[in-house]
Amino acid sequence: MGLIVQKFGGSSVADAQRVMNVAQRVLDTYKQGNSVVVVVSAQGDTTDDLIEKAKEINPKASKREMDMLLSTGEQISISLLAMAIQKLGGNAVSLTGWQAGMHTDSNYGTSRIHKIMSERLKKELDAGNIVIVAGFQGINKYDDITTLGRGGSDTSAVAIAAALGADLCEIYTDVDGVYTADPRIVKGAKKLDDISYDEMLELASLGANVLHNRSVEMAKKYNVKLVVRSSLNHNEGTIVKEVNKVEKMLVRGVARDNDVARIALVNIVDEPGVAFRIFSLLAKKGINVDIILQSIGREGKKDISFTVNESNLDAAVDLLNEHKETIGFEEIKTTSEVSKVSIVGAGMVNNPGVAASMFEALYDANINIHMIATSEIKVSVLINEKNAEKAVNAIHDKFHFA
Amino acid sequence: MGLIVQKFGGSSVADAQRVMNVAQRVLDTYKQGNSVVVVVSAQGDTTDDLIEKAKEINPKASKREMDMLLSTGEQISISLLAMAIQKLGGNAVSLTGWQAGMHTDSNYGTSRIHKIMSERLKKELDAGNIVIVAGFQGINKYDDITTLGRGGSDTSAVAIAAALGADLCEIYTDVDGVYTADPRIVKGAKKLDDISYDEMLELASLGANVLHNRSVEMAKKYNVKLVVRSSLNHNEGTIVKEVNKVEKMLVRGVARDNDVARIALVNIVDEPGVAFRIFSLLAKKGINVDIILQSIGREGKKDISFTVNESNLDAAVDLLNEHKETIGFEEIKTTSEVSKVSIVGAGMVNNPGVAASMFEALYDANINIHMIATSEIKVSVLINEKNAEKAVNAIHDKFHFA
Repeated sequence: MGLIVQKFGGSSVADAQRVMNVAQRVLDTYKQGNSVVVVVSAQGDTTDDLIEKAKEINPKASKREMDMLLSTGEQISISLLAMAIQKLGGNAVSLTGWQAGMHTDSNYGTSRIHKIMSERLKKELDAGNIVIVAGFQGINKYDDITTLGRGGSDTSAVAIAAALGADLCEIYTDVDGVYTADPRIVKGAKKLDDISYDEMLELASLGANVLHNRSVEMAKKYNVKLVVRSSLNHNEGTIVKEVNKVEKMLVRGVARDNDVARIALVNIVDEPGVAFRIFSLLAKKGINVDIILQSIGREGKKDISFTVNESNLDAAVDLLNEHKETIGFEEIKTTSEVSKVSIVGAGMVNNPGVAASMFEALYDANINIHMIATSEIKVSVLINEKNAEKAVNAIHDKFHFA
Repeated sequence: MGLIVQKFGGSSVADAQRVMNVAQRVLDTYKQGNSVVVVVSAQGDTTDDLIEKAKEINPKASKREMDMLLSTGEQISISLLAMAIQKLGGNAVSLTGWQAGMHTDSNYGTSRIHKIMSERLKKELDAGNIVIVAGFQGINKYDDITTLGRGGSDTSAVAIAAALGADLCEIYTDVDGVYTADPRIVKGAKKLDDISYDEMLELASLGANVLHNRSVEMAKKYNVKLVVRSSLNHNEGTIVKEVNKVEKMLVRGVARDNDVARIALVNIVDEPGVAFRIFSLLAKKGINVDIILQSIGREGKKDISFTVNESNLDAAVDLLNEHKETIGFEEIKTTSEVSKVSIVGAGMVNNPGVAASMFEALYDANINIHMIATSEIKVSVLINEKNAEKAVNAIHDKFHFA
């Protein structure tokens, strides 16, 4: 008995039958004596279809109008889910982002939640209603509709759980939980019973598409107990929480990220401030840079390589070429045929042999490493995209998760 | 130069090309030096598709959730139209019903506008924006989304024109204006240059599907100058306004309404209060009754016949059968194979011969009349549905609109 926030993604509510399934699960939770807030994404391909509609009219539509358009996707889902719960005899009320008091900044398309005015949520819960909230959306100080960008519904759910002091925030998805590797590419991948916020953060940002980074960050900040579980069965899922004990397992998981492109600036003048000029330029345009590698070139010149998301590749190259003179490089080389493969584990920090084992696994599999990046709890390598699956399997085998 | 409200229906914005056409027309109006507010309906079949989605999940969905669902249709249209205007180089901002301050009562599905808090509208107009407002929707005192029911977007447009003191409210549709009869069934039908509010009211309620009654009522109340014109060409359209001069033409138009069903209660006890019992019963359930006819039956009994909308027929019959004892009738007979054909004209009131001419036209065409109803500016007859087109043509010919 408590207050539970449940989040269902777009595929969980893709058609009428799935909406009814979700309704039944929500109602079961409610009937066990819990207060329930449900956060829902847009149905199936709705968001993509809406983007297509917009592109047909204006490929450079203003972000404010895009948010006005896209927010309808979740509004459709919440009303249908409320109707489904009513059909099963439950009391449900749907709330849009603004009705649920989701106040955000004004960065249309990538807004962040500032605060949640939870009066309405509380009022509906007190009235015994199951409250269905549109994920991914909010309202800014101008009373305009905003959206939170990728993974926004996860963030909405965690934010509501934090604001209401929920006992649990369940993220329903199409896998059973967090795995030691992607079960679709690694046969022996095992489900984890629990994982720490920090480990989950590294995994999320490394391409294990289970939970979005921002939602995990927020869960960590407000100490929201998360569970990642499947909407297709009643298996236990993986608990994401603060883990204090030293973990037995050094490495918790192997992740792969194909949405990576590498940019190399060749023969840059070797003088102070070059790196600053390059990366502040990219940062100003909102282009995130991941792994950075600097190497010595010929005759007082150097090379700088770094990775960006594939979707940012063209913008980054255009930007750099515009400032070719100022930066002072000779040539720009790019490839998107690369993948980032990473291992994550809080136990790694005190065990320097872990990285070596990973490199050994790759060597045994005859896979060349282009770049390496490490943090306290992860090691990432950049390799050719065609080797990514083989690499994940080789590394997973090496650490034989048992 | 002035403030113009333009309303475009769902077929005018059904696809990307049509949205662009509307955008161009709106922008032209703006470039002529006018401030422009545009009210838009949902695209093409969007509303029907959404209703279908809801029915699949819960045919008896709560009206609150239906409004939550249906209001997304207009929200999609407004954002797309704003994007289209931006594409053409104009400044546009879209506003949902609640953002535009459209406050309504809480009769979900059939709400009425209480007041318009026009601060946001004015602010956007002052900033030089073309303001695109979602028709058909508003917000109630609980901050819940409501819809206005049939013809709601016309009503939204007129209400905004009234609130802002607009110089003109243009209702764009797929016909050139108001005709003396439906041009699809009467060859010689002629477009009217102008028509009075009262005449338009009678025509609207009689099945000339150009303008919804509620919008005309509101236009009359707040003296909003309306123009009905085509979105497909630049013809002048028909002006709807207060007409003081005695009209030359006695009869302004002939209208047909096939959405009519007749209910006859046979052999009712002839005692005081019977009519009251019947019609208060129907009124309580929101069933509108149109023509009523009472006739003397046999042996102290009487018959009462009346018409309702076809969509209300089943509900009305169920309701009456439930109260068969209290009302005290013997039998209930119904038919939906009837049409109402009417003539409308402000000049009619002082010319008793007009009704007779109409009956003569029907007699000449060998069409039997079931019921007759008259008001100061109209005469309606109920006839078999299969004769409706013939009747409209015969009457139109009789009054030879020139």
